[in-house]
Amino acid sequence: MARWVYSFGKGKADGNASMRELLGGKGANLAEMTSLGLPVPPGLTITTEVCTHFYAHGQNYPNELQKQVAEGVQKIEKIVGPKFGDAKNPLLFSVRSGARASMPGMMDTILNLGLNDATVAGLAERSGDARFAYDSYRRFMQMYGSVVLDIAHHQFEDILDSAKREFGRFQDGELTAADWQTICARYKDMVQAETKKPFPQDVQEQLWGAIGAVFKSWMNPRAITYRKLNDIPAEWGTAVTVQAMVFGNLGGDCATGVAFTRDPSTGENTFYGEFLVNAQGEDVVAGIRTPQQITVAGKTAQKSNAPAMEEVMPDVFAELDRVRKTLEKHYRDMQDIEFTVQQGKLYLLQTRNGKRTAQAAVRIAVEMAQDGTIAREEAITRINPTSLDQLLHPRLDPAAPRELLTRGLPASPGAAVGRIYFSADDAEHHANVGEPVILCRIETSPEDIHGMYAAKGIITARGGMTSHAAVVARGMGRPCVAGAGELHLDYAAGTLKVAGQTFRAGDWLTIDGASGEIMAGQIPTLEPTLSGDFATLMEWADGARRMRVRANAETPVDAETARRLGAEGIGLCRTEHMFFDPLRINAVREMIVAEDEKGRRRALDKLRPMQQQDFRALFDIMDGLPVTIRLLDPPLHEFLPHSEKEITEVAAALGIDRPALEQRLMQLHEANPMLGHRGCRLGITYPEIYEMQVEAIYGAAADAVRAGVKVKLEIMIPLVATQRETVLLKERIVAIGARLAPDLPHLIGVMIELPRAALAAGEIAAEAQFFSFGTNDLTQTTLGLSRDDAGRFLPDYQRMNIYPKDPFVSIDQAGVGELVQIAVDRGRKARKDLKLGVCGEHGGDPDSIQFFEKVGLDYVSCSPYRVPIARLAAAQASIAASGKGKAFSKAAAA
Amino acid sequence: MARWVYSFGKGKADGNASMRELLGGKGANLAEMTSLGLPVPPGLTITTEVCTHFYAHGQNYPNELQKQVAEGVQKIEKIVGPKFGDAKNPLLFSVRSGARASMPGMMDTILNLGLNDATVAGLAERSGDARFAYDSYRRFMQMYGSVVLDIAHHQFEDILDSAKREFGRFQDGELTAADWQTICARYKDMVQAETKKPFPQDVQEQLWGAIGAVFKSWMNPRAITYRKLNDIPAEWGTAVTVQAMVFGNLGGDCATGVAFTRDPSTGENTFYGEFLVNAQGEDVVAGIRTPQQITVAGKTAQKSNAPAMEEVMPDVFAELDRVRKTLEKHYRDMQDIEFTVQQGKLYLLQTRNGKRTAQAAVRIAVEMAQDGTIAREEAITRINPTSLDQLLHPRLDPAAPRELLTRGLPASPGAAVGRIYFSADDAEHHANVGEPVILCRIETSPEDIHGMYAAKGIITARGGMTSHAAVVARGMGRPCVAGAGELHLDYAAGTLKVAGQTFRAGDWLTIDGASGEIMAGQIPTLEPTLSGDFATLMEWADGARRMRVRANAETPVDAETARRLGAEGIGLCRTEHMFFDPLRINAVREMIVAEDEKGRRRALDKLRPMQQQDFRALFDIMDGLPVTIRLLDPPLHEFLPHSEKEITEVAAALGIDRPALEQRLMQLHEANPMLGHRGCRLGITYPEIYEMQVEAIYGAAADAVRAGVKVKLEIMIPLVATQRETVLLKERIVAIGARLAPDLPHLIGVMIELPRAALAAGEIAAEAQFFSFGTNDLTQTTLGLSRDDAGRFLPDYQRMNIYPKDPFVSIDQAGVGELVQIAVDRGRKARKDLKLGVCGEHGGDPDSIQFFEKVGLDYVSCSPYRVPIARLAAAQASIAASGKGKAFSKAAAA
Repeated sequence: MARWVYSFGKGKADGNASMRELLGGKGANLAEMTSLGLPVPPGLTITTEVCTHFYAHGQNYPNELQKQVAEGVQKIEKIVGPKFGDAKNPLLFSVRSGARASMPGMMDTILNLGLNDATVAGLAERSGDARFAYDSYRRFMQMYGSVVLDIAHHQFEDILDSAKREFGRFQDGELTAADWQTICARYKDMVQAETKKPFPQDVQEQLWGAIGAVFKSWMNPRAITYRKLNDIPAEWGTAVTVQAMVFGNLGGDCATGVAFTRDPSTGENTFYGEFLVNAQGEDVVAGIRTPQQITVAGKTAQKSNAPAMEEVMPDVFAELDRVRKTLEKHYRDMQDIEFTVQQGKLYLLQTRNGKRTAQAAVRIAVEMAQDGTIAREEAITRINPTSLDQLLHPRLDPAAPRELLTRGLPASPGAAVGRIYFSADDAEHHANVGEPVILCRIETSPEDIHGMYAAKGIITARGGMTSHAAVVARGMGRPCVAGAGELHLDYAAGTLKVAGQTFRAGDWLTIDGASGEIMAGQIPTLEPTLSGDFATLMEWADGARRMRVRANAETPVDAETARRLGAEGIGLCRTEHMFFDPLRINAVREMIVAEDEKGRRRALDKLRPMQQQDFRALFDIMDGLPVTIRLLDPPLHEFLPHSEKEITEVAAALGIDRPALEQRLMQLHEANPMLGHRGCRLGITYPEIYEMQVEAIYGAAADAVRAGVKVKLEIMIPLVATQRETVLLKERIVAIGARLAPDLPHLIGVMIELPRAALAAGEIAAEAQFFSFGTNDLTQTTLGLSRDDAGRFLPDYQRMNIYPKDPFVSIDQAGVGELVQIAVDRGRKARKDLKLGVCGEHGGDPDSIQFFEKVGLDYVSCSPYRVPIARLAAAQASIAASGKGKAFSKAAAA
Repeated sequence: MARWVYSFGKGKADGNASMRELLGGKGANLAEMTSLGLPVPPGLTITTEVCTHFYAHGQNYPNELQKQVAEGVQKIEKIVGPKFGDAKNPLLFSVRSGARASMPGMMDTILNLGLNDATVAGLAERSGDARFAYDSYRRFMQMYGSVVLDIAHHQFEDILDSAKREFGRFQDGELTAADWQTICARYKDMVQAETKKPFPQDVQEQLWGAIGAVFKSWMNPRAITYRKLNDIPAEWGTAVTVQAMVFGNLGGDCATGVAFTRDPSTGENTFYGEFLVNAQGEDVVAGIRTPQQITVAGKTAQKSNAPAMEEVMPDVFAELDRVRKTLEKHYRDMQDIEFTVQQGKLYLLQTRNGKRTAQAAVRIAVEMAQDGTIAREEAITRINPTSLDQLLHPRLDPAAPRELLTRGLPASPGAAVGRIYFSADDAEHHANVGEPVILCRIETSPEDIHGMYAAKGIITARGGMTSHAAVVARGMGRPCVAGAGELHLDYAAGTLKVAGQTFRAGDWLTIDGASGEIMAGQIPTLEPTLSGDFATLMEWADGARRMRVRANAETPVDAETARRLGAEGIGLCRTEHMFFDPLRINAVREMIVAEDEKGRRRALDKLRPMQQQDFRALFDIMDGLPVTIRLLDPPLHEFLPHSEKEITEVAAALGIDRPALEQRLMQLHEANPMLGHRGCRLGITYPEIYEMQVEAIYGAAADAVRAGVKVKLEIMIPLVATQRETVLLKERIVAIGARLAPDLPHLIGVMIELPRAALAAGEIAAEAQFFSFGTNDLTQTTLGLSRDDAGRFLPDYQRMNIYPKDPFVSIDQAGVGELVQIAVDRGRKARKDLKLGVCGEHGGDPDSIQFFEKVGLDYVSCSPYRVPIARLAAAQASIAASGKGKAFSKAAAA
């Protein structure tokens, strides 16, 4: 006979923690704690297989279920004494859902099940507390009515409110037993009127109603959406746990509380928790009374006057502290415990791995590995790499008060405090005189780079997570709140209006790029520390990973940041970023508007020494680490001005006619610049531009070598689609190299960022020594999706599960990923020692990094501030690939 | 011993016509004609393998070559009598190159080789014509000097010109024997001065110099470039033919000429040719004297006064006419013959398949098949499908005089005569009152469609072969000259200036879209005939092909044209073209600027009946043939106005604020519209738009069926990238179909136009009943190449052989083609009866059609005027696939 019900109680349990799939997280852990001898009220768990059966058979239960539940109830009765439905000495139940992972949108809990007009009297008598009994009854009716009978919650609230007015009471606590009894009667009348049936008095009907409600909630729309978004199969199903009630609200020797085995915000190995005397669980959640601390240390830290449990219930506290040690030792992770104290006796109602801050997660994992509780590799897999972002940037002092003005998108993490300015020039000017600056723009463009660079933080009113502002800010490590649509920016008036207030240039604002919040004034921040546990964890991660991690960096500051954060080279130096420097942009523009090659060469001659200096600086900083330099990529019009005012200024600066400049602008205008005259196409049609860059690169490399610097140079050609482009450009590069740095060993490779390049990878690899996957552009072309424009429909697309994740954030493995795989296979086949890396935004995304490990890339490259994330994610990917990861992730899920 | 030399002469030859690869086209056919017993001067051919050996061995010849050449020369001497280098009775040679295919840029011919100071005297004596002898000597020195000795041509011309001045002669014909002798002496002095060596007097040195010059010319830059562009491997090499000279310039019984076995311009089975009495081949080319006709019929047709060869040399003519019959029977194709008559005796110097007009090609192939000379399938393979374009459109009367103003790109074939107008509205207005109109624009945009439609022809000053004007014009079958850069259009002044003239609105111009010419005034045109031989050929082609051919059409006129030209259905009805209709565009705009769904629905309600009418008309015309209707594809901003003036007008027409309209325009602006909010993405985010279209489609289909029309409906979803998009949209379409036309059998499919869709084809085919490859967009995304922008660098890319052909004209088989192949494989695996077609521009390109046949598509769809081309190309592809094609193409190349 199939087993549908698993009992637990009095030190014995049919299940255990490893049966999470069958019993749900709650049920499995209650069984486990029971077996550990911990004080758990007895109960039974109906398995997830019943849920599956229920939906596979037209919402009918397996035949044996009713019998098995009845047997389980008898076992509970036997352990606790009172009987379910017994009018004299009634046993009450809590009924809870329990999926493998907790799931919002599903039914959570019904307490006090088993109360009816008869048993409530028995409870009043047995407890000697009629007020408690009728309060429990009305609580039960309220929960059961709304969850099982589908009666709107406010129907109950309305009765309660009008009764309070009628009786002249203000707080629930002032209501007497008689008051509650009256309210119970009115609840019953209302239920009868709404459902055309009396409130169920049969406790079996109550129980099966509750069980059915749990199973039905598995298929409610919110739960379905959540599963779709989180890739949870509907077949998993939910379990139901029916457990004997214990009461924390039976008097002064009763309590209910929540505790963490370590401090969830710092990770410190200290007991941390709160409790309420004489209360039920829901009172803690409701937050009407201020909870007390469990430990004296906690009380001191919180500067609380209320006594700690350690003081008022020392015995219970001692037992709880023993439980803490038992559970941590057993689960090998920090636990989040729910407990109730009934008349001086401790009961455990739940344990699970506790949620924690990133800082706490790192400290707990490192300390547990150091004391031998877990292996180092397990410590590595315990940390969500993305959460490290919180540790790398200043954050707001959580204790500081704040005035929230509005929210935008959390585009680049970190907190920033500064005076606001509305143009890149103003921002730079004020930053130069030492002011902390926040740049506020409707949206940003490449011409704003110097202002973004000068600023401590960036705000935009328009644009998504992958807008120019967001991408550049993340690259620079500047906190950024993007697309804050409620901001009204008026450049002409020099004002920013939001939430009824008007701010002017120079006013103070604070932003939190991790939450997207914009606040008035200056809020104190805490600086990040990269030493201690963090450094230990990263060291372990470095030891565990196969893939190398490089950074995308152009400026000396970025290169130094990258090294500080552990980058093992530069995977992408975008030479065009150097072109935007205000000191150079006019030479660049002169080159672009030149009438002929001679004119272009004249302008390029001015740029060459500057570029050479730039490259030299990078070689010096990266001393011996690889530096991959990409030749010019963006279309030339990106370097020209667009506003009327700027066109006039630039024409004057270049000493040419305004109409001539406008003419050139019109000539260069492109319908789809992403697919236009850019990348190696510029190199093919204007050989002199790449020639200048390549001369600067080899010149700098030769200089550096003469100065004793180790140089590991990799020259990268962007946007190739064919072998022939590679051949033509390589020939020219090789010729210059032979002239300027004949003895320098170096590599010449290409970016693979077009579908055609991926398909032609075999032929291209015959010419190229390395591939770097430009997955940003490869995503744009493979999906036919412009990153700049997708914001208008991509949120809908994610909502409808067309692309479950933003494909610019996490690589689309089925589509873009297959092209990467094809290119890797064909490339390696043509050239065994082909070096393979990735330098798109995906290089810093943990899920994508897992994929790149599987595909067998040699390295990932990402923006400097994502380097630690990539290091950790790469280590996790290596561990997963080794097969060890599975065991850990099972343990961690327990 | 390897054989490097093949002799021919006196009815015997070592080689034959099938040895084209070894002997070159010329050498092989000379051998063949010799074996046929035709009068060919004897000679020898040095094989292409010598050329290969020459380059493989540091420009040295094989050891045995000299001996074999000497033996060949002796054979010739034995046949003709005179000896090579004999001062008394000298044998002279012509030396010619001969590759498999004739190749511009290579050395062509040296005549009269073997003349020196001694032999020239012998020639004078033997011929009794000293003037002839010294004229021949100086011609030889001139050719040899420039080709072998690398002396600039003008050096000889200068001497000749100053001698003529000195002697008081004006025409070459006036120079005497003594004059030519003087000139020969001056030539020799000049050669001595230039080369520091005397002009070679040793005839062997002359011969080997000429042979070497041929081989060296194989590797000159022009020849290399030509080979690269035409995919001819350098290993092929060239042959050299050395042949005994015969002279057409030895008196009144001598002549030289060229003849075609059928009329190369009409294809009529009549002898056609021209000759010059007393002349050498180069005189015919030089065009100083007007040649005479060969036949009396030709003389009459040309209204010539000069007597025909049939009259003045009846015996020679009779022999030539016998040769004509022999060669046609032998080669089974129309031949182009070169001949010389020396003292009443006919000699043949070359035969090859004759070039012909498209009209002639069709007639010749059909007639040869009808009289059993060739098989029908061979007739089909003989016609270049692209050449049919010339037969489908009116063409200029070739006899009419014309005044050429300028040239642009031949963007859409056909001749058009009309009055010019500078705006779409004016063009439409004047066309409506019955004027033939030519629309002249700097460039066109979707807003000009109605004007283009109303016009007889279109001219633009800017844009390439794939510009909007070119693509739309080809689609509509309107002749178009695009990118005529010399035109100065001034809309404000209402003038078009070109070639020093000024034209105003209403003035007449004539254009030839096949040549790109723009002419002043009205030039008479000839209408195309689609009957007769053309119809016969197409009927044969239809019988031979496997793939179906459909047309891209939206309007009733296009649909009717498509049927008339043989389309077997509509493969692409672009519903958005219907949106641009002036009567509808405002409802479309109202829909776009609507604030909410309700507003959009209000506007869509106006459009629904109009769209329904459109679809109904198509169903009626295509009665029973499949009609594939694509749901809305372009981004919404394409329907909004862009110029200041239009914005004001449209705002007024819609009754909204100008700023509101501008705001909406700004919201809808896209950085890369090609990759933006378009295609099924519109259907996903604005369900009501597709809903309206689908209602109109099913409504029209149901109406048509009720009226007794057969409807074969296929609804097509554009720009899908994922299975999920297909699922979501299909659900909605199916629901509407079930409501409006429940019993109508029909298909729902998708366009495959993104790389991701090709990769996900298996999953998508599980939902879609057909795929139509949108290879235009698939090319744009796979290659990362915007069709609108590529004009700036694609010509360079073609020149450098990066893309040998414009990938928007002929599919990039290696890249885009592989994705098509992947999609076909995966799609068919998932759904056996998946219907596969293509509806991009490539659907009308013969090379691409060959590819689609190989991949196994079910049909191609192209613009109506390309339907006959596609029918023929599909037939050729079928024949090639059957393996028969190979035999034919070998024969045709002979």
